[in-house]
Amino acid sequence: MKAAIIGVTGYGGIELLRLLANHPSIDVHSIHTSSQTGMRLSEVYPHVTNLVNHSLEEIDIPKIANEVDVVFLSTPSGVSTTIVPELLNENVKIIDLSGDYRLKNPNVYEQWYKKPAALQEDLNKATYGLPEWYKEEIQNSRFISNPGCYPTATVLGLAPIIKHELIDESSIVIDAKSGISGAGKSPSRTTHFAESNDNFSIYKVNQHQHIPEIEQVIQGWDASIPYVTFSTHLVPMTRGIMSTMYINSAVDSLSLEQLYEIYKESYQDSPFVRIREKGTFSATKEVYGTNYCDIGLAFDKRTNRITVVSVIDNLVKGAAGQAIQNANIMFGLDEKTGLHYVPLFP
Amino acid sequence: MKAAIIGVTGYGGIELLRLLANHPSIDVHSIHTSSQTGMRLSEVYPHVTNLVNHSLEEIDIPKIANEVDVVFLSTPSGVSTTIVPELLNENVKIIDLSGDYRLKNPNVYEQWYKKPAALQEDLNKATYGLPEWYKEEIQNSRFISNPGCYPTATVLGLAPIIKHELIDESSIVIDAKSGISGAGKSPSRTTHFAESNDNFSIYKVNQHQHIPEIEQVIQGWDASIPYVTFSTHLVPMTRGIMSTMYINSAVDSLSLEQLYEIYKESYQDSPFVRIREKGTFSATKEVYGTNYCDIGLAFDKRTNRITVVSVIDNLVKGAAGQAIQNANIMFGLDEKTGLHYVPLFP
Amino acid sequence: MKAAIIGVTGYGGIELLRLLANHPSIDVHSIHTSSQTGMRLSEVYPHVTNLVNHSLEEIDIPKIANEVDVVFLSTPSGVSTTIVPELLNENVKIIDLSGDYRLKNPNVYEQWYKKPAALQEDLNKATYGLPEWYKEEIQNSRFISNPGCYPTATVLGLAPIIKHELIDESSIVIDAKSGISGAGKSPSRTTHFAESNDNFSIYKVNQHQHIPEIEQVIQGWDASIPYVTFSTHLVPMTRGIMSTMYINSAVDSLSLEQLYEIYKESYQDSPFVRIREKGTFSATKEVYGTNYCDIGLAFDKRTNRITVVSVIDNLVKGAAGQAIQNANIMFGLDEKTGLHYVPLFP
Amino acid sequence: MKAAIIGVTGYGGIELLRLLANHPSIDVHSIHTSSQTGMRLSEVYPHVTNLVNHSLEEIDIPKIANEVDVVFLSTPSGVSTTIVPELLNENVKIIDLSGDYRLKNPNVYEQWYKKPAALQEDLNKATYGLPEWYKEEIQNSRFISNPGCYPTATVLGLAPIIKHELIDESSIVIDAKSGISGAGKSPSRTTHFAESNDNFSIYKVNQHQHIPEIEQVIQGWDASIPYVTFSTHLVPMTRGIMSTMYINSAVDSLSLEQLYEIYKESYQDSPFVRIREKGTFSATKEVYGTNYCDIGLAFDKRTNRITVVSVIDNLVKGAAGQAIQNANIMFGLDEKTGLHYVPLFP
Repeated sequence: MKAAIIGVTGYGGIELLRLLANHPSIDVHSIHTSSQTGMRLSEVYPHVTNLVNHSLEEIDIPKIANEVDVVFLSTPSGVSTTIVPELLNENVKIIDLSGDYRLKNPNVYEQWYKKPAALQEDLNKATYGLPEWYKEEIQNSRFISNPGCYPTATVLGLAPIIKHELIDESSIVIDAKSGISGAGKSPSRTTHFAESNDNFSIYKVNQHQHIPEIEQVIQGWDASIPYVTFSTHLVPMTRGIMSTMYINSAVDSLSLEQLYEIYKESYQDSPFVRIREKGTFSATKEVYGTNYCDIGLAFDKRTNRITVVSVIDNLVKGAAGQAIQNANIMFGLDEKTGLHYVPLFP
Repeated sequence: MKAAIIGVTGYGGIELLRLLANHPSIDVHSIHTSSQTGMRLSEVYPHVTNLVNHSLEEIDIPKIANEVDVVFLSTPSGVSTTIVPELLNENVKIIDLSGDYRLKNPNVYEQWYKKPAALQEDLNKATYGLPEWYKEEIQNSRFISNPGCYPTATVLGLAPIIKHELIDESSIVIDAKSGISGAGKSPSRTTHFAESNDNFSIYKVNQHQHIPEIEQVIQGWDASIPYVTFSTHLVPMTRGIMSTMYINSAVDSLSLEQLYEIYKESYQDSPFVRIREKGTFSATKEVYGTNYCDIGLAFDKRTNRITVVSVIDNLVKGAAGQAIQNANIMFGLDEKTGLHYVPLFP
Repeated sequence: MKAAIIGVTGYGGIELLRLLANHPSIDVHSIHTSSQTGMRLSEVYPHVTNLVNHSLEEIDIPKIANEVDVVFLSTPSGVSTTIVPELLNENVKIIDLSGDYRLKNPNVYEQWYKKPAALQEDLNKATYGLPEWYKEEIQNSRFISNPGCYPTATVLGLAPIIKHELIDESSIVIDAKSGISGAGKSPSRTTHFAESNDNFSIYKVNQHQHIPEIEQVIQGWDASIPYVTFSTHLVPMTRGIMSTMYINSAVDSLSLEQLYEIYKESYQDSPFVRIREKGTFSATKEVYGTNYCDIGLAFDKRTNRITVVSVIDNLVKGAAGQAIQNANIMFGLDEKTGLHYVPLFP
Repeated sequence: MKAAIIGVTGYGGIELLRLLANHPSIDVHSIHTSSQTGMRLSEVYPHVTNLVNHSLEEIDIPKIANEVDVVFLSTPSGVSTTIVPELLNENVKIIDLSGDYRLKNPNVYEQWYKKPAALQEDLNKATYGLPEWYKEEIQNSRFISNPGCYPTATVLGLAPIIKHELIDESSIVIDAKSGISGAGKSPSRTTHFAESNDNFSIYKVNQHQHIPEIEQVIQGWDASIPYVTFSTHLVPMTRGIMSTMYINSAVDSLSLEQLYEIYKESYQDSPFVRIREKGTFSATKEVYGTNYCDIGLAFDKRTNRITVVSVIDNLVKGAAGQAIQNANIMFGLDEKTGLHYVPLFP
């Protein structure tokens, strides 16, 4: 299979390239960007010197669609809506890593993203690419909207207790933390080393655009869930997300053992979700560079509250790795193809 | 005034020394440790070369009590209980930075600390040294139990909404994050650079010994508050604590403006608590090296939930700085004496 | 004494403000910047909330000169040359933290800085503000050109062996490393956290504009010294410079003991230079936040080569602290005034 | 082919495991350690949960030699000498990652390592496993002594100019910097996060045990080279080594173009050495997680001095990756087998 990557110079794009470089069935045919066209990629990212010989090409949709089997869009919010409609007219699979096609309701998109939404008809065509819960839909889709990094960690953590109706639906509090690569490649004061190093900050309290994405997914499973509380923090590290979730139990005499059983069963066929040993929790480095989502659990009898701790690499399971997992499924490959790495540790 | 520091080679002790070095009214008379006696401090901490000429002395309580006005105890849990009883027999003020005298109920101490508790009669003599809420008690006390780092950030953040009875008492969720200096000076795998750098982890979920301390303080203000949920995370940075707190509002039509008014009024006479501009939140670096506790607020109408974000330097307001603030109050000095620094930034 | 700070929003400027906030004899009267005029400083730097109430003022030289005793210029290269000529016509002391008046030869400036040089007559008026070696000149000057960060660490390390004619003049190799705050406040790819964290890089090999500054100073002491080799590296930390210097000994049977004696004697009257215990070397954190320059020494009999290791905080002894030390000397104060801090550790 | 790893719980061992997990021709058959026998590896390193199911076995040499084709020894200094003699009696290939068999002269070993040396006859059997310069010897060897991390970066950087006799042999100055994983897995004050974070230090000045290793290699190429000057620094990052080398040119009218030609030609058949574009230098992150050694060059006409900048990942090309490269060569495989990764960036 041949792939094109549009928006390759962002961190999601460069990570797609890293992972696809060793993928046995998907070759990167061409890489595209709206600027710097004609440059070799190694001029922008010298770490690929000798390893990636592609040059940056312009975004010529008919040409791309003619030459490849799948197009990965790793573009900022608001760009995919200008490219996807044309791609949908072509005979090519599409995996969009941006947020543009995740929210089914264009009004909600416009409220949270402050940008014009995609067309409703195109939104309807997009399949939410969370393979652990929508594998069949993905198999039958040609257009995937790849989940956001925070929602991936969060909804994988929440799914089993929601599906088993164990919780007080109005009690969900999500305290999420991310490495700074999540802010992307554009330098800013927030990502300026001198000010972000040795520092910990909170941002977009109650205002993060991933809030409606989380709500859409979990309300799809349990319509009685109202809004959630969700905060995001910046950790002085490059990669990694931890989502710490607090939920009141709605059942009598819940036990930690029960919780573990439910989670293990829920994910027994999901090779990238690892339920950790009871009493242990994964640190973000334990999934570094890989597509794993590690989940740990606690239950406090004193407060009748469940704590779920879910950890991913934001650039892999939170972006490029999950996109490749989706591509594997779309192409009928084993979903692990090209993704079975041992985390880089230390 | 003359001071002795017992346990000076821990991070709390060395920070006491840094701050007292420029204190106009309190001189460090002697420094003590249970090991390394006879060495100059600069042999253990070369950064004090030429600046601190004291040598490490053994812990001879009668001699110490005879020579100084105040003794700071910056010792690990379980050590103060072997020293304080003797000190209480002497005519000297005592400020204990350890956790040994914070919990009034010895059974609770033994349950959470897994160590023998102090004597009940000595526990009764200890005043909880949180100056913003117990200033009068501190003025009249000769024995201060200095608050824990997490409880300081947390209860300063919770106090106004508890005292104004704005909240659902059973809904308090506290997600706390700390720099790694909070783990102290002893090397361990958890604090090993190669494994903690570029990493974010959670620890002691529902089991941190600061949980009963927080509960004791806030239940003292509102006996109807049941247990709280409290998690602690390690951030790859040296100093700083952020406590992010989620609490359901119990009142109709709460507004963010109201919240800010209540917080500003609550702390109008507290020089070290800074209520931040509406809509902004302090990052930990914004209090680096200083005794400030910065508080930011959010209220989400969608969920009727309040978010309080409280930030301190764990070694200053969370330990040595607060101890000096307490000493100032005990000696009748302005509580800011020797503590009015601008945070080190960047 | 009253001071104005021009360029206060850069890291040198904000550090001047931090240190002057506790200076007993110099008050910050006004702060100035070419942009953001009218804003309160706390809007740009929220860490000064409640502590600095100044607003940013425009740069009106006659007004400033009329109101203050000393003007600190903490502006980027090329800006001071537009301000200093006017200031020289006024009755006010001037301390310029930029590189504009350090090089006496305007051609050399233009070659290395790629900018128009200052007027030769104004260059002649500037005193190079390295107090350890030019104290008398500073006392008699009203216009100080504050040394660069790398040159400060480097020439303090080289001075004793040059003045004692111990070295092969053509053999000086300087390998310097700096924290990322040295790159200033403007975000760029080089200072972008995701790419600079957990990374170590070299830059401006043989091309750093501090090379001619170092050469000018040491050639002033020994005209037979030719060019030096000087490389600069970026360390993933906020503050700190280490300059590791390698110099061939030119004398027979040099001993390490001799070297230490020479250094101790050279700096016996320099309160901010600390010659470390034989066999030990200071890490950058051991001077964090302070005006100290720590020097360690090695001599390798196998190669007959001396290694000098000199460490400073680039924003203090390498910028704001040294500027205040110069101001103290100009005003006839003890040079330590307002600068005797214990390093922040850990 | 089957492999055993002795000393798997060190960072070199765990990195061997990470890389061999995806090696198409070498399977990890068993893993061994002197302690923690019987535990699953995931209990010590939870990041391998579900990925590595091996348990830690004791070190039974005959059994190991009977079952595998190659033994990797990733043990601390002084341990290999107790294992290798027995292994040499067995029919198995040996790759020793420790320093025990690198120095051919046992007296030199004992002087620098302060430990008893290996037997001279066994030292004679060991092949120094630097594939770029000893490929043929490695092909014909069954016992490889894998180079040290600093020597790998350093001698790859020095080789071309030494072999082309371009330099003043007595002028070699090497200023090396390493991430903290180079200090290994044992916690210590030096590697304690609170003290090593945001800090830069120098250690073992003129005393590092890699000095004689570097000298042995380069003197093997040019016997007229005397001792070298070599310093090592700790960078607050996990992985990566940069060796910055300063060497006087011995030829008239050397040009940078010439230098680049020589380096490119020298390494044209070395897939893991990347000579960077003229005027650019690799940062350590540009080889993160991979077996590449990136080299950049400068020549300063002013001083007639060459600067060589060589960068590796200390745990890959400086340890486990190079060991696998050696194994590939010993087994007649393409040396890149299992090692062609794109660096993890950012």
